[in-house]
Amino acid sequence: MEERLGFIGLGVMGQAMARHLADEYPLAVWNRTPERMAPLIEEGCRGAASASQVVQASDIVFLMLSNDGAVSAVAEGPEGLLEALRPGQVVVDHSTISPAETRRLADLVSSCGAEWMDAPVTGGDIGAREATLTIMAGGTSNTYQRVLPYLQKMGRRILHVGPVGQGQTLKLTANLVSCLTLMAASEGVRMGLELGLAVEDLATVMNYGSAQSYELKKVLDRWNAQDFNPGFSVENRYKDLKLALDLARQRGFDATLAEAAEPLYRQHLEQGFGAVDEASYIQRWTKGE
Amino acid sequence: MEERLGFIGLGVMGQAMARHLADEYPLAVWNRTPERMAPLIEEGCRGAASASQVVQASDIVFLMLSNDGAVSAVAEGPEGLLEALRPGQVVVDHSTISPAETRRLADLVSSCGAEWMDAPVTGGDIGAREATLTIMAGGTSNTYQRVLPYLQKMGRRILHVGPVGQGQTLKLTANLVSCLTLMAASEGVRMGLELGLAVEDLATVMNYGSAQSYELKKVLDRWNAQDFNPGFSVENRYKDLKLALDLARQRGFDATLAEAAEPLYRQHLEQGFGAVDEASYIQRWTKGE
Repeated sequence: MEERLGFIGLGVMGQAMARHLADEYPLAVWNRTPERMAPLIEEGCRGAASASQVVQASDIVFLMLSNDGAVSAVAEGPEGLLEALRPGQVVVDHSTISPAETRRLADLVSSCGAEWMDAPVTGGDIGAREATLTIMAGGTSNTYQRVLPYLQKMGRRILHVGPVGQGQTLKLTANLVSCLTLMAASEGVRMGLELGLAVEDLATVMNYGSAQSYELKKVLDRWNAQDFNPGFSVENRYKDLKLALDLARQRGFDATLAEAAEPLYRQHLEQGFGAVDEASYIQRWTKGE
Repeated sequence: MEERLGFIGLGVMGQAMARHLADEYPLAVWNRTPERMAPLIEEGCRGAASASQVVQASDIVFLMLSNDGAVSAVAEGPEGLLEALRPGQVVVDHSTISPAETRRLADLVSSCGAEWMDAPVTGGDIGAREATLTIMAGGTSNTYQRVLPYLQKMGRRILHVGPVGQGQTLKLTANLVSCLTLMAASEGVRMGLELGLAVEDLATVMNYGSAQSYELKKVLDRWNAQDFNPGFSVENRYKDLKLALDLARQRGFDATLAEAAEPLYRQHLEQGFGAVDEASYIQRWTKGE
């Protein structure tokens, strides 16, 4: 039996992911801003008028939304998922949201006889476009086996990491590490520059030694180019940091370093850097803080 | 004119570095613990009775010692460098010590008409053995050109990064970044484990995403192997962290994240982890802190 698929949330990531599914299966799509649906409808997807309509037309509905509020609005709002969900259906949420909200929504969906699976992704725009995402799924084994063929169309490394909520837990943990690694790199690079060292000497020593990290290389490359405009924004990273810290606090985990980092990051945001790349953190000192 | 070379400080690193010089040039050696000299003497080096004697037998003297105190003792102590230094000689210090102590010793050496060059290294035991070290030199351009051929026998990436002290400044900055990156990785890995995730899932997601770093991989590998014994010790890393923090404070740089990290690292040391690998930091929580 061929399953009918639906996709809600067609931002840059969602659009690229939906396209990989649409390449192989009939797909119903919906987006709050309808213009975002147009390219996929042109390519043969069926445009729906609401989240409920996507549920009516599908067995499995994939979500890719920006935060807890957006996911809750699509699930619980008027013409939302819950108004239409039937027993046996599955909602696969690729958004990055809190494990607590995930479990709450999973309970609501479960009372309709349907099932929730959290399946946040890493790999960014490029990973979404090239179908090389890492996808970490939380849910039952049966549901994981059922959705795995579809996840494999969108990603390269697909993991079942535990029950509902554990996908989000892993995603937030990984985000915490990259955020703190970015700040470690930024603090060091800025210190080196302030103490009179050349950025290329910092790069030669640190990119090849034990200071090496993905974030360090990004900071050095962007500082070299003096380009902080495109990329992963300070605002988005701060959202991720807060989600990870909330999770740590709720679960009684003492994230000392993250607690120290949070106000620094927040100050950077408040100084008006919200929309630029997070590598701009290195500029905090130069802007006369 | 062939220059006469000397090497003082024959620990694991120093011995390997001295051997590369001895492969090509006559070399006088000295070590506080005389047994360490034996293998090099067997291979044809001339064993000296004191640091002064090495200076008498050499035009350029290389040092590889463990800390500020050891370098100062060799330079200023009885039968030390300063008792014998003559105009035109050069002391090249490969040890990792403070820039302030470096400048103080450079002044003393300069008053003998000789010159000091700080040239700390990264790359560890393996880099020393395979002559693939990164060497960051601080000093005058003339002296750098004079010693460069010898540095090239010991390392692969050789950089002249500024006047005396700047080699140490760069080394301490790189150490600060790796120490903070280690703590970022450790905090995240520990959080993931406490919240019920499997170490292999943490590794799959984080080693291939933006959380990636040299230190993260080390933490995950060692946690997997449950082996914290060999490697770079907590004690040595704490010394490096303190040197970097002292430098930041002296120069008025606000190293907020490092200030937050220092007490965590110190507590780990005080709990008796000093001699084991720094990746053991992840155990801090499990030992009932």
